[in-house]
Amino acid sequence: MRAEIISIGTELLLGQIVNTNARFLATELQELGIESYFQTTVGDNPDRIHYVLNEALRRSNLIITTGGLGPTSDDLTHEAIASFFKVKPVEDKKVLEEIKKRFALRGYKKMPAMNKKQAYKPKEAKWIPNKFGTANGIAWKVNNQQLIMTFPGVPKEMIQMWSDSAKPYLKKLVKGNILHSRTLKYTGIGESALAEKIKKYFNLKNPTVAPYASTGEVKIRVTAKAKTIKEAKRLVNKTAKEILAKTKEYYFGENEEKLEEIVAKNLISRRNTIGIAESCTGGLLSKRLTDIPGSSKYIKFNAVTYSNEAKNKILNVPIEVLKKHGAVSEETAKAMAIGIRNIAKTNIGLSITGIAGPSSGTKEKPVGLVYFGLAKGNNVKVQKVLFGSNTTRESIRFLATQFALNWLRKEI
Amino acid sequence: MRAEIISIGTELLLGQIVNTNARFLATELQELGIESYFQTTVGDNPDRIHYVLNEALRRSNLIITTGGLGPTSDDLTHEAIASFFKVKPVEDKKVLEEIKKRFALRGYKKMPAMNKKQAYKPKEAKWIPNKFGTANGIAWKVNNQQLIMTFPGVPKEMIQMWSDSAKPYLKKLVKGNILHSRTLKYTGIGESALAEKIKKYFNLKNPTVAPYASTGEVKIRVTAKAKTIKEAKRLVNKTAKEILAKTKEYYFGENEEKLEEIVAKNLISRRNTIGIAESCTGGLLSKRLTDIPGSSKYIKFNAVTYSNEAKNKILNVPIEVLKKHGAVSEETAKAMAIGIRNIAKTNIGLSITGIAGPSSGTKEKPVGLVYFGLAKGNNVKVQKVLFGSNTTRESIRFLATQFALNWLRKEI
Repeated sequence: MRAEIISIGTELLLGQIVNTNARFLATELQELGIESYFQTTVGDNPDRIHYVLNEALRRSNLIITTGGLGPTSDDLTHEAIASFFKVKPVEDKKVLEEIKKRFALRGYKKMPAMNKKQAYKPKEAKWIPNKFGTANGIAWKVNNQQLIMTFPGVPKEMIQMWSDSAKPYLKKLVKGNILHSRTLKYTGIGESALAEKIKKYFNLKNPTVAPYASTGEVKIRVTAKAKTIKEAKRLVNKTAKEILAKTKEYYFGENEEKLEEIVAKNLISRRNTIGIAESCTGGLLSKRLTDIPGSSKYIKFNAVTYSNEAKNKILNVPIEVLKKHGAVSEETAKAMAIGIRNIAKTNIGLSITGIAGPSSGTKEKPVGLVYFGLAKGNNVKVQKVLFGSNTTRESIRFLATQFALNWLRKEI
Repeated sequence: MRAEIISIGTELLLGQIVNTNARFLATELQELGIESYFQTTVGDNPDRIHYVLNEALRRSNLIITTGGLGPTSDDLTHEAIASFFKVKPVEDKKVLEEIKKRFALRGYKKMPAMNKKQAYKPKEAKWIPNKFGTANGIAWKVNNQQLIMTFPGVPKEMIQMWSDSAKPYLKKLVKGNILHSRTLKYTGIGESALAEKIKKYFNLKNPTVAPYASTGEVKIRVTAKAKTIKEAKRLVNKTAKEILAKTKEYYFGENEEKLEEIVAKNLISRRNTIGIAESCTGGLLSKRLTDIPGSSKYIKFNAVTYSNEAKNKILNVPIEVLKKHGAVSEETAKAMAIGIRNIAKTNIGLSITGIAGPSSGTKEKPVGLVYFGLAKGNNVKVQKVLFGSNTTRESIRFLATQFALNWLRKEI
C-alpha cells in the first residue's frame, strides 16, 4: 500500500497556519508501515483539487485528504472529489438529524442552512464519524482498488477520527511489513564529521540509516522493515550497536530525549546538586536545567552575573582577577565556578562567561569566545571554545549551553 | 508570476519534523503579491524529485525548493535539478575555498571530503550565499523564462538567504499589485475576546483583517493590495488606526517586534536598570531580557532562587515570611522584589514565584498559581495570577514571563 497526503486549504498556501496535520499523518503512516512518497498542498479550488487528485491517483492507492469539510462555501472537498468521479453526492438523512441535534445541544433554535451540505456524500462512500464537530469525513473505495479518506482540517477532530476509525481499519488492511526506528542523538560533533565515521551504513537497504542535523545536535536514524516488530527491532538494534561502537564518544541519548534530561537524570541518580553562574548566556542554561520537572532536587541557586560588580560581590571573583584578565577569561571562569558552588552550597559549580555579540568583540576576544568553568570537590577545570563568529547571538548562546550540558554529562 | 514551493526531505515524509519552511515562504510570497497554488513535499530521491519538478514547471514559473543541500549522500537537490535539465554541475573554486575556510575557522585541520560537492552547481546558475553554513543555494533561470531557487532545509539559514538575497531580487521582478501588511501584536487578552471588539473589520475586502493566536499573544494582520506601495500603506494605516483605537489597552508592538524588545527599549530610554529574582520560571525571564543585544545596559545581576535558603541568604527574604506564608505567596514575592533590587543595586526589582508543575500543587496553591512582585522607588506592588491548570509546565513558565514583561511594559 502506498499513501499520499493532500492538504486542502487556501490558508495553508497563504502561510496563515503551519501544516501540523501532514506531519501527524506521516508519522502514523510510518508506524503502520505504509509507504508515502509525496505530500501536496492545494487551495480550496475544485479544478486544482482535481489536478492533484489525478496526480495522486496515478502514483498511490491510498489518498488521505485534510481540510475543506466545513459548512462554508469555500469548503468543497467532498464536492470536488465527487465531481472528479462524475458522481452526485446524496443526502444522508440520519447524519442530517445528528448535525441538527448537535446544534440543538449548543442552544441553537435551528441548524444554520449552510450546514446541510455536511450531510451529503457519494452514495457508495462510508462516513468517518467526527466526535467533536459536524464535519464528518468519508472513506471511499474508487476504481475498485484505491481508497480515498477525508478528514477535516481542525487537528483535534482529524486526530480523533484518524485514531478511532481510520487507523484501526488500515491496520487490518495492511498485512505484512512493520517499520521500526531508533534515532541516535549526538552533540559535540558536526554532521559531516559524524557521517564520515559511519558512511558505509548510509548505503544499507534494510535497515536504512540517515543523518539529520539541527543547531548543536546531529541525529542518526536507523529504520528497518520486517514481518514482525521483533524482527524489525532485531535489525535496527544490530546496526545501531555497530554505529554506536564507532561514535560512542559523542552519543548522548535517543528519540525524544533531550540533553538536559540526560544531565538531570545523572545529577539526580548520583545525588549531585549544582549551582550555575552565567554571564553571556543570561539564564538560558538555568532555564534549560529547570525545564525538567523535579529540578528543585538538584538546583538551589543560580546567578546571572552580568556586571563585574555582581561577579565580585555575589561570586567573590577577586577585583584583581577581573582587572588583570577581564570578565571573559580562564581565571574569571574558574573563580565564578568556585564562587557559585560555595554560595549555592552545592557540590558542583558551573560557570559560563563569554561574548555573545553581535558587538563588543575585539581581535583578542572575538564574538563567539566563551570560557566554561567546572568546580567539583577540589577539582576546577576550565574550557575555552570559539563558536563560529558567523553565527548569531541566539545560536552562540544556545551552543554555549549545549557545550556546558555535554561537558556536565561527561564529567558527572 | 506564479510560484510553487517544493519541500525536499525524507524526514518530512516520515513526519520527523514539521514543515515550517513552507509556511514561512508562503507568507513571504503573499507579501510580495506572488500567487502560489501548490506546495509539494518529496523525499531525497532523484526520480521523484524529477517527477515533482516536471509537474511544477508545467504550472508555475518560480520554483522554490528547500532541503537537500547538505554534504551527505542523501542530500541531492542540486544533482537532481541538474540531471533533470541534463546539465553536469561544475566546481566553483572560490566557493570551495570559502567552505574550506569555514572549516578551518571551526578548528578543523581539513574540510571533510564529502563537503566538496557543496561547491558544485550548474554553470549558468548563480549562488544564493549562505551566511551561516556551507549549504549555498542557487538561482537558475531555465527554459529562458522560469526561475528555480534552492535553499537549505535549516530554517535559520533558509530565512537569512531568502531575506538577504532572494526577496530583494524578487521584489524588483514583481510588477503590478503590491501587497502591504501590518501585524498588530497584543498580549493580556484572548483571541476571541479581542476578535469580538473588532469583528466588523473581518468582513473587509481591501484591506483584509485576520486574527492569529499563539501562546500568550494575539496578532491582528491588516493586508492591503494596491498599485503603489503608498496607496497600499494608506489603506492599511487607515484601518489599523481604527482597530488600535478599540484595542489600545492590550497592544504592545508590531510585526517582528518582541515583547522583550519593547521592554528593553523602554528600560534603556528611561535609563532604568532592573534586577530579576525568579523561582518557578528558572531563568527564563532573565534569558528573554538578555536575548536583546546590549542588555548589559539594564541588567547587572539576576538570581534564580529555587530553595528557601537561597531566597533568604541571597535576597534577604525573612525566614519568618517563608515559614508563615510559604515560598509561593504575596509576601515572599514582595520581599524577593525588594531584595533583588537592593542586592543588584538597580532601580527596579522584579520577582516571580509560583508553581509550574506538573506536581507539587495543592488545593490552596494549585499548579499554575504565580505571584509577581515589582519594586520601584518606595513603591512595591504584587500581582497574583492563576494560569489555567490544564496547561503544561512549559506554557505556565512562558505565560508567567509574558505576564511579567507586559506588567513591566505598562509600569515603567
